[in-house]
Amino acid sequence: MTTNTSQLLARQTKLAEALKSAGLDALALNPGPSLVYLSGLPFHLMERPVIGIFRAEGEPLLVIPELESAKLGAVEYPLQAYTYGEDPSTWADVFYTAFSGKGLTKIGVENNQMRLLEFRILQAALPETVVEDAGQVVAGLRMFKDESEIANMQKAAEIAEAALRDTVAQIKIGMTEKQVTAVLLQQLLQHGSEGELPFQPIVSTGPNGANPHAVPSERVLASGDLLVIDFGASYEGYFSDITRTFAVGRPSPEQERVYNTVLAANQAGRETGKPGVTCSTVDEAAREVIEDVGYGKYFTHRTGHGLGMEAHEEPYIRGGNPMVLAPGMSFTIEPGIYIPDQFGVRIEDDVYITADGLTSLTTYPRELQIIGV
Amino acid sequence: MTTNTSQLLARQTKLAEALKSAGLDALALNPGPSLVYLSGLPFHLMERPVIGIFRAEGEPLLVIPELESAKLGAVEYPLQAYTYGEDPSTWADVFYTAFSGKGLTKIGVENNQMRLLEFRILQAALPETVVEDAGQVVAGLRMFKDESEIANMQKAAEIAEAALRDTVAQIKIGMTEKQVTAVLLQQLLQHGSEGELPFQPIVSTGPNGANPHAVPSERVLASGDLLVIDFGASYEGYFSDITRTFAVGRPSPEQERVYNTVLAANQAGRETGKPGVTCSTVDEAAREVIEDVGYGKYFTHRTGHGLGMEAHEEPYIRGGNPMVLAPGMSFTIEPGIYIPDQFGVRIEDDVYITADGLTSLTTYPRELQIIGV
Repeated sequence: MTTNTSQLLARQTKLAEALKSAGLDALALNPGPSLVYLSGLPFHLMERPVIGIFRAEGEPLLVIPELESAKLGAVEYPLQAYTYGEDPSTWADVFYTAFSGKGLTKIGVENNQMRLLEFRILQAALPETVVEDAGQVVAGLRMFKDESEIANMQKAAEIAEAALRDTVAQIKIGMTEKQVTAVLLQQLLQHGSEGELPFQPIVSTGPNGANPHAVPSERVLASGDLLVIDFGASYEGYFSDITRTFAVGRPSPEQERVYNTVLAANQAGRETGKPGVTCSTVDEAAREVIEDVGYGKYFTHRTGHGLGMEAHEEPYIRGGNPMVLAPGMSFTIEPGIYIPDQFGVRIEDDVYITADGLTSLTTYPRELQIIGV
Repeated sequence: MTTNTSQLLARQTKLAEALKSAGLDALALNPGPSLVYLSGLPFHLMERPVIGIFRAEGEPLLVIPELESAKLGAVEYPLQAYTYGEDPSTWADVFYTAFSGKGLTKIGVENNQMRLLEFRILQAALPETVVEDAGQVVAGLRMFKDESEIANMQKAAEIAEAALRDTVAQIKIGMTEKQVTAVLLQQLLQHGSEGELPFQPIVSTGPNGANPHAVPSERVLASGDLLVIDFGASYEGYFSDITRTFAVGRPSPEQERVYNTVLAANQAGRETGKPGVTCSTVDEAAREVIEDVGYGKYFTHRTGHGLGMEAHEEPYIRGGNPMVLAPGMSFTIEPGIYIPDQFGVRIEDDVYITADGLTSLTTYPRELQIIGV
């Protein structure tokens, strides 16, 4: 489902209210998910700067390179657009014309998205303006997914699961992690994923699985390995992010014990998440299961992260996070145990909070599957 | 070819010299191609900040999340590494410990890569330090590719050309732009491209081709269309970027005239580039061909851009750029003509400057190919 004009206008209106509450005249965005969310327009982070300013009062202002101007044809909401040509020495004037004299005394930016490139341009065009981090303002809007966003995420989850099924069917002992990754990437596209994935797949075998962020290597899949596959699909700009761990041949008793512990932790997390519960509580529920079996020090990361147009966004499911879950929030639940130099296990699902509980978008079987035999 | 330790040390030494010349004590980098170039370590831009500081004197300093620390196992050069845990409130202390008291009075950053997230962390850890844009310092190193870098780019070009050949063989009238893109993406992976592409492919048909940065749509390929395919492959972190334009069925006389004009402009650009010539001169050589036939106003962008670990980097082949070409520089030559609401033509090659001229990494036939009949 593509975002339509009424959705965009509703988002812009909500943002305007949030800006007023925060005492800000506007939000300035460079290319990234928040700009897509509010404008519907896809731009990339390049050497040619793009800045959109969404105001508490008045239509949005947008400055883009001339050669991107065809994209404006799709805009059906009020917008003041300005373009510049190929000579960088002319750019500052265009930004000044676009942004000055518009009553922008105090504006917000996203510190985790805005580059110094665009920030310096803003400063030059608006030398008197106070600029502060307003990442939480827009995250606070994007965190609550509407039906069409959940539908896109559901589709992204289905694509990932179909790709995983068809990849697993092709995995054989003797394949390298890179070869498994290549099969997985092709299956993702085959099943309808967009090319811009949430992140490059993690396919890690044996001791490499003990590194939660391993990069696929030339290591060959062998009997006795555990195999961790962590990846996602993209649909209409929305992501899925799923991890399953497989046994290559018969697992050892310790592998099985660790696996079942992670599985119970994943289930505890999914059973705990509901409206009114804090992120911290969900993290603790999953962590406690692992600590009780004595593997606490091998669960080295938080239980999950928000998911949507970004692979990692609010809410973060970590200890100490007092944020209270509410309907529409979507995030991962992905406990893991990493035994250094031996193996790792992670089981990750994508969930969202409903009126009275939690629904998992991912449903791929969670029981330990033995493959490659 | 993977970067080895002696290459990394050589790059760090060259950087130290460049920093001294620029009067800088260090260069601070967040995740991105320059950090990979100097450290060999792949990190991603995430909500967890990563900063590497490369000093004019002394070993590099690196701060990363604990759960990424397995990546440090690959480091075989002197490095002071610091890690932090999952609680954001503890991060500032780690950065302060890592960076303070290290004699960093004046440091450089890359304005087009550094986010406010990392910049604010730097400011907090080094409140007295002057921070300025040093994008040109590191671009000045990365611009000159060594043999192993050119070999990687050559391989990326070969992968792209093999993928294009096999994609063209499958294109049929009635396919949508999105369907052609899906075939192309699968062929890229099939032929060995890494998953992290330089950019999402542009597949534009008929009037959509008049938008140089078109996004693949549901438009159906029809007889009489021109078809523009602009994409690249990735190999060992190095990119290719090639465009070819095809005729679907017999082209009209105007389509043929425009095509041959662009082809002549592409050739003029390739014949003009050599050591001692400016970027501006190459742009003018290509542009003149198009202006002479009266299509000048429809060639709306620069003639090319540098290529390597980034899809767009120095040197930029545009009018007014006085940069002098020298051996090892690699860039695209991609003139185009865009007739609004009708069609577009672009022909793009990847080239590098040799001791006495220019070599094209891409050699896919440039004559107008008729397909889909």
